[in-house]
Amino acid sequence: MTTAELTIFEALESNVRGYCRAWPTLFDTAQGAWLRDGSGREYLDFFAGAGALNYGHNNPVLKQALLDYIARDGITHGLDMSTVAKRELLEAIERILLDPRGLDYKVQFPGPTGANAVESALKLARKITGRTTILNFTNAFHGMTLGALSVTGNAAKRAGAGVPLVHVNPMPYDGYVEGADFGWMERVLDDNSSGVDKPAAVIVETVQGEGGVNVARHEWLRALAGLCAARGILLIVDDVQMGCGRTGPFFSFETAGITPDIVTLSKSISGYGMPLALVLMRRELDQWAPGEHNGTFRGNNPAFVTAKVSLEHFWTDRKLEESTLLKGERIRESFGALADSHAGITTRGRGLVQGLSFEDASQASKVCRIAFEKGLIVETSGAEDQVVKLLPPLTITDDELDHGLKILTDAVHTIREGR
Amino acid sequence: MTTAELTIFEALESNVRGYCRAWPTLFDTAQGAWLRDGSGREYLDFFAGAGALNYGHNNPVLKQALLDYIARDGITHGLDMSTVAKRELLEAIERILLDPRGLDYKVQFPGPTGANAVESALKLARKITGRTTILNFTNAFHGMTLGALSVTGNAAKRAGAGVPLVHVNPMPYDGYVEGADFGWMERVLDDNSSGVDKPAAVIVETVQGEGGVNVARHEWLRALAGLCAARGILLIVDDVQMGCGRTGPFFSFETAGITPDIVTLSKSISGYGMPLALVLMRRELDQWAPGEHNGTFRGNNPAFVTAKVSLEHFWTDRKLEESTLLKGERIRESFGALADSHAGITTRGRGLVQGLSFEDASQASKVCRIAFEKGLIVETSGAEDQVVKLLPPLTITDDELDHGLKILTDAVHTIREGR
Amino acid sequence: MTTAELTIFEALESNVRGYCRAWPTLFDTAQGAWLRDGSGREYLDFFAGAGALNYGHNNPVLKQALLDYIARDGITHGLDMSTVAKRELLEAIERILLDPRGLDYKVQFPGPTGANAVESALKLARKITGRTTILNFTNAFHGMTLGALSVTGNAAKRAGAGVPLVHVNPMPYDGYVEGADFGWMERVLDDNSSGVDKPAAVIVETVQGEGGVNVARHEWLRALAGLCAARGILLIVDDVQMGCGRTGPFFSFETAGITPDIVTLSKSISGYGMPLALVLMRRELDQWAPGEHNGTFRGNNPAFVTAKVSLEHFWTDRKLEESTLLKGERIRESFGALADSHAGITTRGRGLVQGLSFEDASQASKVCRIAFEKGLIVETSGAEDQVVKLLPPLTITDDELDHGLKILTDAVHTIREGR
Amino acid sequence: MTTAELTIFEALESNVRGYCRAWPTLFDTAQGAWLRDGSGREYLDFFAGAGALNYGHNNPVLKQALLDYIARDGITHGLDMSTVAKRELLEAIERILLDPRGLDYKVQFPGPTGANAVESALKLARKITGRTTILNFTNAFHGMTLGALSVTGNAAKRAGAGVPLVHVNPMPYDGYVEGADFGWMERVLDDNSSGVDKPAAVIVETVQGEGGVNVARHEWLRALAGLCAARGILLIVDDVQMGCGRTGPFFSFETAGITPDIVTLSKSISGYGMPLALVLMRRELDQWAPGEHNGTFRGNNPAFVTAKVSLEHFWTDRKLEESTLLKGERIRESFGALADSHAGITTRGRGLVQGLSFEDASQASKVCRIAFEKGLIVETSGAEDQVVKLLPPLTITDDELDHGLKILTDAVHTIREGR
Repeated sequence: MTTAELTIFEALESNVRGYCRAWPTLFDTAQGAWLRDGSGREYLDFFAGAGALNYGHNNPVLKQALLDYIARDGITHGLDMSTVAKRELLEAIERILLDPRGLDYKVQFPGPTGANAVESALKLARKITGRTTILNFTNAFHGMTLGALSVTGNAAKRAGAGVPLVHVNPMPYDGYVEGADFGWMERVLDDNSSGVDKPAAVIVETVQGEGGVNVARHEWLRALAGLCAARGILLIVDDVQMGCGRTGPFFSFETAGITPDIVTLSKSISGYGMPLALVLMRRELDQWAPGEHNGTFRGNNPAFVTAKVSLEHFWTDRKLEESTLLKGERIRESFGALADSHAGITTRGRGLVQGLSFEDASQASKVCRIAFEKGLIVETSGAEDQVVKLLPPLTITDDELDHGLKILTDAVHTIREGR
Repeated sequence: MTTAELTIFEALESNVRGYCRAWPTLFDTAQGAWLRDGSGREYLDFFAGAGALNYGHNNPVLKQALLDYIARDGITHGLDMSTVAKRELLEAIERILLDPRGLDYKVQFPGPTGANAVESALKLARKITGRTTILNFTNAFHGMTLGALSVTGNAAKRAGAGVPLVHVNPMPYDGYVEGADFGWMERVLDDNSSGVDKPAAVIVETVQGEGGVNVARHEWLRALAGLCAARGILLIVDDVQMGCGRTGPFFSFETAGITPDIVTLSKSISGYGMPLALVLMRRELDQWAPGEHNGTFRGNNPAFVTAKVSLEHFWTDRKLEESTLLKGERIRESFGALADSHAGITTRGRGLVQGLSFEDASQASKVCRIAFEKGLIVETSGAEDQVVKLLPPLTITDDELDHGLKILTDAVHTIREGR
Repeated sequence: MTTAELTIFEALESNVRGYCRAWPTLFDTAQGAWLRDGSGREYLDFFAGAGALNYGHNNPVLKQALLDYIARDGITHGLDMSTVAKRELLEAIERILLDPRGLDYKVQFPGPTGANAVESALKLARKITGRTTILNFTNAFHGMTLGALSVTGNAAKRAGAGVPLVHVNPMPYDGYVEGADFGWMERVLDDNSSGVDKPAAVIVETVQGEGGVNVARHEWLRALAGLCAARGILLIVDDVQMGCGRTGPFFSFETAGITPDIVTLSKSISGYGMPLALVLMRRELDQWAPGEHNGTFRGNNPAFVTAKVSLEHFWTDRKLEESTLLKGERIRESFGALADSHAGITTRGRGLVQGLSFEDASQASKVCRIAFEKGLIVETSGAEDQVVKLLPPLTITDDELDHGLKILTDAVHTIREGR
Repeated sequence: MTTAELTIFEALESNVRGYCRAWPTLFDTAQGAWLRDGSGREYLDFFAGAGALNYGHNNPVLKQALLDYIARDGITHGLDMSTVAKRELLEAIERILLDPRGLDYKVQFPGPTGANAVESALKLARKITGRTTILNFTNAFHGMTLGALSVTGNAAKRAGAGVPLVHVNPMPYDGYVEGADFGWMERVLDDNSSGVDKPAAVIVETVQGEGGVNVARHEWLRALAGLCAARGILLIVDDVQMGCGRTGPFFSFETAGITPDIVTLSKSISGYGMPLALVLMRRELDQWAPGEHNGTFRGNNPAFVTAKVSLEHFWTDRKLEESTLLKGERIRESFGALADSHAGITTRGRGLVQGLSFEDASQASKVCRIAFEKGLIVETSGAEDQVVKLLPPLTITDDELDHGLKILTDAVHTIREGR
């Protein structure tokens, strides 16, 4: 890879570009857990499109379905017209996702991004309740459009709004304040002079990926759901990053035994990395008027095709869920060993979202930089970028996983011991 | 098409769905200007994905490039990593779009929707100026996320926000108040006690598609640009629907001879109907910090491939622009004849966005309904849905155009004369 | 007056102080139209407490009633308890103000400032209609608390808010845009895609004092009232400065023949310059819940006493109204002569609010400065401080008026001709 | 008192009236701790104008000064012109309040209400810091205009705004969540991804009167001040109700040993129940531009006179402070006995703001109703109106205090035991 090949990006692409700075090469092709650059060098991918590639890059089964669909001139852009591809996806959602789990949701196709799904969910919750306030959580990340950004925690990203972000009140996420749980939240909700206006909804991630791989306990999620239900507050689970099997089951909230009022899905829902997003809402909450929320690309039919095939291929049995949990354990063991050998390192995670947190935040970035040099793509997260966050494809092999963990382990040792 | 085939949509898809109600059939494949449903019936498409399919459905040249890219495992989902597909698109943008027009823009890849491009543009304008107010125009449409919705005019869509939409002040679009032009806008901007806070930016469509095919005169756009420049207010042209050749030239503002500070593109920019959006900004306005705006699907590489090929195929000479203007004339002639024969009908448009406006608004919907029965897809727009809006593919043949115009002409006669 | 006597103000009083800079002396006593400073120098008052002293300083009739009330230990501070003083004021309001004019208003005592009356009116209008937007007018002034400031035009004062001032949309005041009238306002209200959300209320001054003595024509006010009534929009007349006889009749809107839905009064309502404010609302609009708006000083009983006596003394016949109009004519003649002799000077006004507007704005301040040196208190107003604004006590004698006008005339000649 | 005498209030005064419903008689005169109604009946006042009458009704020393001032035609309404009365007040503030306490404050005269002082303080804090968010506390009360209401807790009062109240984030007041202190507040301020935007200021009452007589510990206030200072966040103490000696010392924050950045004063500052308010700010924070905040009644000169005399009369030695603390003890003893005899009753307070809190909230109102029948004026406060709040004049005699406490004690026994 010569630097010349990257010149155009510096000359023409906006300064807003980010990841290309951390991984300065010219990527070309990808397969499974591997990316390949223009010079033929290969990189193992522990980031998986920030969770958009749970089934790896260019999965051959999905790829064939996609090629067939394009070849036969299946509709590409369908707005929200009824199409064969959409019907088949809806049927698969009903048959594979909803019915077996006893979920009586209706399905909305907003614009094809997670932020758009979040914006839709917030609008719907406000419309239904006639209230404006949303409770979000510390260190949350929900997207960059104005509504989604308002419920996001990061100060630098919030400042980008250019207007005050309002109608929102952050609450402490599980573990944020030692031993605090819902003492504060319940108190303000039940006190009509607390100054916190009664909210339309609470929006929560079951594991905060961007926030630093913060894991909410199942009992905390159950308590949250109960607290909302008792007060007529809608519960929105933003499953954009943690859904589609990232934590084990398809929906990240399944294990906690809760049923959110509204669920947002995106990232891996198309299975192939193509833009797609869904909003699921309890049937009685589907109070949208026709066309009240829309978007040009809400009918990305090729993504419907791969989404349907991915559900059929990965979610008609429990194999993927089980292997995800096993691989998660594999990472935890490796990370546990690191935490044992080095002070100031802790581990956190669920399923195949796992984090290695450094007391000295700068070490996390150093680890990622060394890893890239050794051919591993991995990113930091957290308020101080203090966490090395692993989001490998769920379909990664044990050997690939071990290969990457070896690189990480070496990198940590190098940082910590000069080894 | 049996009704049974549509049952799943009513049972499972949210009430928010819209177009499928106007065109109640199950579409399957598409080619050029034609859609085909599951029963083999064909429909001529005068809506073209609301302007996302300027080069028709599944254009064979783009299709082949897309198939090749997928087949060779080109990266599908690339965040904002540097990729070969992105480099080639950037080079094509520079070579084909910017250099020949003397435009010194930088290119941002926001999330892949028009709304996201608008949100980015508003954020950037506010960041640069440190001001919060945006001036928009009556009957504007810019999208459905909170920031984009705030600058959109439609009351029902605005109400969907569930929170007051603020930091915006609508100004009269060209022709909105007879003979008014910029009297009001200039007066309030130059009066420091007008109560209209000095704005960060003005956002404008050169032709308001959703707003009812309202066409801004070139001299009005020039005056607007001058007025902004003189006062340090940024001019954002939202070219999401009117760009990519819809009005003739690639950028809809070219003919007016203006250079906006910021331009948003989406819809037809990928050429193939796949989600993609761009923000162009004058080089010195690229004051983004790395990662200050981002989005999971900002690296939709297959769309980069078709975008690049579409620029090479359609925009290296002036043939498409010229044929667009000629076909526009063809529609105008047909519509002119209708306006001449029937009172209460007027025409408006530029290039291949053309409207037939009915004094009795209900007639517009009736025309569209009859047209659909005859195999023509066409939609209304405007505050009262009083305008039959034509957005055919730019690549439509004269014969196809005449075929559709014949259906429309007959439909109007039927409505108006019982013929 | 020695400078030393003013030292404490510079040392201890906040920089926010204003008028003391224009009139740098130490005032002590006052009577009628005259102020006297510590050194015994007298100043004729053409500003009258910015309209809070319509009956002059320390009117002897009111003074005696006030002294009696205090001497007999009448309640001073009564919150909103029922008191004898309040009962007598309510009876006088009913007998003298409402009944003779056929006004079926209820009376609210908000906190004792005009801003508080405006805040109450806006809150009530929003509560009644369930809408948030208020239409205000260019160059309006309604006060400095956050709600009142949002409907005020002055950019410097608005900037003081420190937060964006929202939920408001300025409309052109009468004459603001040549020949425009309600073209723009009606158009946006009747177009559900205009982007201007349907407002709760319109708030208007019949003459904009702070705004530069801009006078709304009676027919314009009638059209405004009709336009609001037809659309279910509440009409709030802010009569804080123009009420209590300033333009002739007690309510400034009487001559126009309109009945506002809500009226705010303050400034001269106590008659003696003591803090007091009222909100009048059509009986059916009194939808307040008990205590929903309150304030510690809403029961300023000494002000109730003087308010009642001032109504009885000045408003049981038409003498004051008539003399106000005659004196207004006297000013107009004097100002007319000035405008005739000097290019770039125009006149405006109604009753005893009269303005002399200078094309070269700086001359207005110069005139006021010279006037002060000659013993006349007079202020500028308008977006550029381009208007010398006259607000003399309504009880001023013709001789006093002539004396002040002579000073002004000389000052203008001096400025313009070096005379 | 015949009902007929109250008819006009029902017929003409807005439903918003409140206290007159709890105390349905027609008050006429008042002296010291006593109110007298039209029929000659006397009521002992344990409410003292909600804290505006710390020196009792119509204190004879102040009364004489006021009568003299009015009689000699001292200026009544002076805007912010320099006057003799204002100079003498400023000198007294410097000599009696600031210098002895080593406070280097400047003095602003905003409009004459506590809400206006709060609005000024918030505006100033935002202007100085360039930030918009204010941290307030649960159960806070700061006023009813839009800015002041936004930092107030009461849900019903907040709903009256008719617009969302934003730019504010409530924090737990001392004792609000058992053992929580500043764990939450410090955590969110020091975490740049907490979602709580860095605030301009914190606004706090040292004792929350309206909120239910919640008393902040001195160490809590010190910790708050330290926490703000360390982070460049301004500390505003709203001393409108608790200042002027209510808790003992002149400023309620003195005992805690803190120096707020900004202090608001109103209610008892004029000493005589006349409208007046002050904002004190550290000298270097006086960044106001001339006229940036103003108000017609900011120069209520008769109130300057009584304010000055009240400072001289009550605050040149420590007698009032000491007697306030002793009388507070007297109440605490009486209340302690009640709490000891009845389960479900607790006590709280500092100096002469004391509360009796009922587990069964309805009992508090009942106590007040019975007390009124026995000739005692006393009010409830708290989120559920569960607290009987005592705010007697500081100048009340021990006998009067005992008389009132006897009535209260009897009322509680009646409620609780049928005695």
